[in-house]
Amino acid sequence: MAPPGRHYFDWAATAVPALQTESPKPGTFGNPSSLHAEGREGKKFLEEARSRCAAALGLKPETLYFSSGGTESNAIAVFSQLFRRGACLYSAVEHPSVWENCRVLERLGRPVGLIPVEADGRVSENSLKQALEKQPNTRFAAIMAVNNETGAVNDMAALAALLRREGAVHIHCDMVQALGKIPVDISGWDIDSASISAHKLGGPRGIGLLYLKKPLETLYRGGGQEGGVRPGTENTAGALALASCLEEYNQREALEGAWQGARERLDRLMRGLEGLGRYSPIPRERHDAGDRRFSPYILQAAFDGVPGEVMVRALDQAGFAVSTGSACSSSKAGRPVLEAMGIEAKLRLEGIRISQGRSTGAEEIDLLVRAVGDCLEYL
Amino acid sequence: MAPPGRHYFDWAATAVPALQTESPKPGTFGNPSSLHAEGREGKKFLEEARSRCAAALGLKPETLYFSSGGTESNAIAVFSQLFRRGACLYSAVEHPSVWENCRVLERLGRPVGLIPVEADGRVSENSLKQALEKQPNTRFAAIMAVNNETGAVNDMAALAALLRREGAVHIHCDMVQALGKIPVDISGWDIDSASISAHKLGGPRGIGLLYLKKPLETLYRGGGQEGGVRPGTENTAGALALASCLEEYNQREALEGAWQGARERLDRLMRGLEGLGRYSPIPRERHDAGDRRFSPYILQAAFDGVPGEVMVRALDQAGFAVSTGSACSSSKAGRPVLEAMGIEAKLRLEGIRISQGRSTGAEEIDLLVRAVGDCLEYL
Repeated sequence: MAPPGRHYFDWAATAVPALQTESPKPGTFGNPSSLHAEGREGKKFLEEARSRCAAALGLKPETLYFSSGGTESNAIAVFSQLFRRGACLYSAVEHPSVWENCRVLERLGRPVGLIPVEADGRVSENSLKQALEKQPNTRFAAIMAVNNETGAVNDMAALAALLRREGAVHIHCDMVQALGKIPVDISGWDIDSASISAHKLGGPRGIGLLYLKKPLETLYRGGGQEGGVRPGTENTAGALALASCLEEYNQREALEGAWQGARERLDRLMRGLEGLGRYSPIPRERHDAGDRRFSPYILQAAFDGVPGEVMVRALDQAGFAVSTGSACSSSKAGRPVLEAMGIEAKLRLEGIRISQGRSTGAEEIDLLVRAVGDCLEYL
Repeated sequence: MAPPGRHYFDWAATAVPALQTESPKPGTFGNPSSLHAEGREGKKFLEEARSRCAAALGLKPETLYFSSGGTESNAIAVFSQLFRRGACLYSAVEHPSVWENCRVLERLGRPVGLIPVEADGRVSENSLKQALEKQPNTRFAAIMAVNNETGAVNDMAALAALLRREGAVHIHCDMVQALGKIPVDISGWDIDSASISAHKLGGPRGIGLLYLKKPLETLYRGGGQEGGVRPGTENTAGALALASCLEEYNQREALEGAWQGARERLDRLMRGLEGLGRYSPIPRERHDAGDRRFSPYILQAAFDGVPGEVMVRALDQAGFAVSTGSACSSSKAGRPVLEAMGIEAKLRLEGIRISQGRSTGAEEIDLLVRAVGDCLEYL
C-alpha cells in the first residue's frame, strides 16, 4: 500500500509491494551447496522456486539463473561478451545497466555500436538493418522489450528473426518492464538471454532472474553456484518470493485482465490530460491509449512551459509520486532516451513519466488529472 | 533455530538465522533514487542503515557500499583492477570469489601472482615479501582476515603495514568469516577495501557490504546507485537487517563474550576429539583452543582412515551438519586451501570442517563428540 494521503504513479521505478510479506519458511536457511540435510533442504526449496518461475514463464527450469536483480542480469549478459569476439550492439534507448556496460566493453577494446530507434522510440527492422550494416561482425545485440521511460514496446519476435538471419548473434532482452505487464513469450521470441526483476513485480529487492537459452561463460566467479553463471550463496527466500510474484502476475489470464484495466485507466488519464490543454504525450504520435506500440503502464507526458522537474516537485507536494526519467538516471543530466527518439529539447525538458500498476484505481487517475490541472494554474 | 533433532555445525557456510524476521517497515519500499516523498523516505531508511553499519564498524558511512553479499563485494574489488595497471596478488587460501576472479583478470591480460602461506595457513611477512619480490610492480593484494576452511587468522595490521611500505598497493581483505566473530579494526588496519556478508552473521541472503577507504572505479554499471560502485535498485530492507546484525553481533562486548564462549566450546570439542584417538587437527600444530592464530569458530579436523566425505555423510545421518571444505567449493574436486598449506594428501582427503556459532550449546559439543566416536566405531 502507498502511504495514506499519497497516490503512487511511479511503478516503473519500483512497484508497491503487492504480496503479503512471507516470513522465510523454516528449512530455507541451509546453504544449497552444502551436502547435509539442511543444505539439501535449502536446495530443494531453491529448485522448487526455479521450477515455479519456469512454469510461470513457460520455460525449462535449467534455463533460469537467480541473480540479485535486473541490473545484475543485464550486466552478466553484457560482460559475458568479454570472452567472445565480434561487435556488440545495443538499442539507443536501453537502460543504463545495458548501455553503460556496453560502453565499458568498448573501453576494454570491444567494437560496440548503436541501434537507432524510430521517432516512436521503437527499434524497427530498418533501424536494426542499418546498425548491422555498420557492424557486419555483430555477435551480440541488446534490445529491451518495453522501454522504461516511454513504454515503447519492441516487436521482439520480428527483430529476433531478423537477427537470426545474420547468423550467430546472441540476442539479449531486458524484460524488466515487460514481465507481469504485457504478454511475453521468451521461448517463442527465440532470444538468447533475458533479464527479470522481482521488485518491479511487487516482490522484494535483491532478487531477479537471468534467462539463458544455452549455458554461457560469464565474468564474475565464486563458488560455482547457479551453474557458474552467478556466484554467491543463493537467496532462497527471495527466489521463492519471486516465484510467487510470477505465478500471481504473469499468468495469461491475470495479465490480460490487468492489462485491460491498465488500458482503461490510461485512456481516462490521456483524455483527462488532453482536456487540460498544454499537454503532449511523448512521442506526440501516441494519442491513443489503445496504441499497441506502447505499454499502458507507462506514459511520458509534457506540459507546455513547465519543466518536468518542476512538475514532479509540484505533484509531489500535492501527494502524487511521478518521476521525470527513470529513477536510475534521476541524478544525471539530460534525457538520452528522448534524445535518441529525436524529441526536441523543449519537450525533453518538460517530460514527466507517469507509471501505474495493478492496484492503481480509476479514481486516483481522476485525482491526478485534477492535481495536474491545479499545478498548471500557477506554473 | 536448527530443525528439531538436528545439530548444526556448519555456521561458516551460513549462520542459523538469528534475528526475528522483521517485516519490512512501511516507507522502505520507495526507490531511493526517486525524487518524490516515497523515494526520499526510502533513501532516508537506506542512509540510516548505512550510518548504523558504519557506527557498528567504527567507520565513516560514506566508505560503505551495499552489495548483494560477500562474493559480489570480492568480485567488485578484484575487477576494479581491470582499470588499473600493475600486478595483482592473492593469498593461496583465498575464497573462490577472490582467486577465481583474479584468474579471470589474468586471462584478460593482467599479471597475477600468488602469496604463499605458511604451514599454519597464514600469510607471514616473509611469504608476502617473497610474493612481492616476484611481482615488483604489485598494485593490488587480496588477503583474507579469517580463512573459511581452517579458521586461520591473518595479522592484517602487520601485513598491511608491510604492503604500505611497497607504495601504492590496494589492499583488499575478505572479512566474511571475521565480522561478528573476532575483533576487526578496518580503519586501524589501514586496508583499502573489505567484504562483509549478512547471512554469515545470521542476517538475510542477498545483502552485504563493500568497504572502500577511497572511492574506486568499478566494473559493473547501471543507475549510478551506491556512488556508482554497485548499481541496481537498493535493497533497503536487507540493508536495515544487516545493520541490526552488525549492531547485535559486532559490538566489542558482545563479540568478546561470544568469543570467550566459542573458545570454551572449542576447547571442549578438541579435548573430546583427542579422547577418541584417530583425530588430528588441521594443521597438526593447532593443538590448543587458545591458539590466537585461529578463529575459535572454525576447526578443520581429520580422522584417521575415514575420508571426509564419508564422515560428513555419517554425521549427517546421525543428525549433525558438518562439511568438508567450504560450501562454495563442495561440488569441486580437491582441497586447494589445504594443499597450499602443504598438508599431505591423506590428511586432505580426511579433512572435515566443524564450524560453530553464537547459539551452539556446550551440550551439543558433547553430542557431536559422541557421534564422531560412534561413527569411528564402524568406519
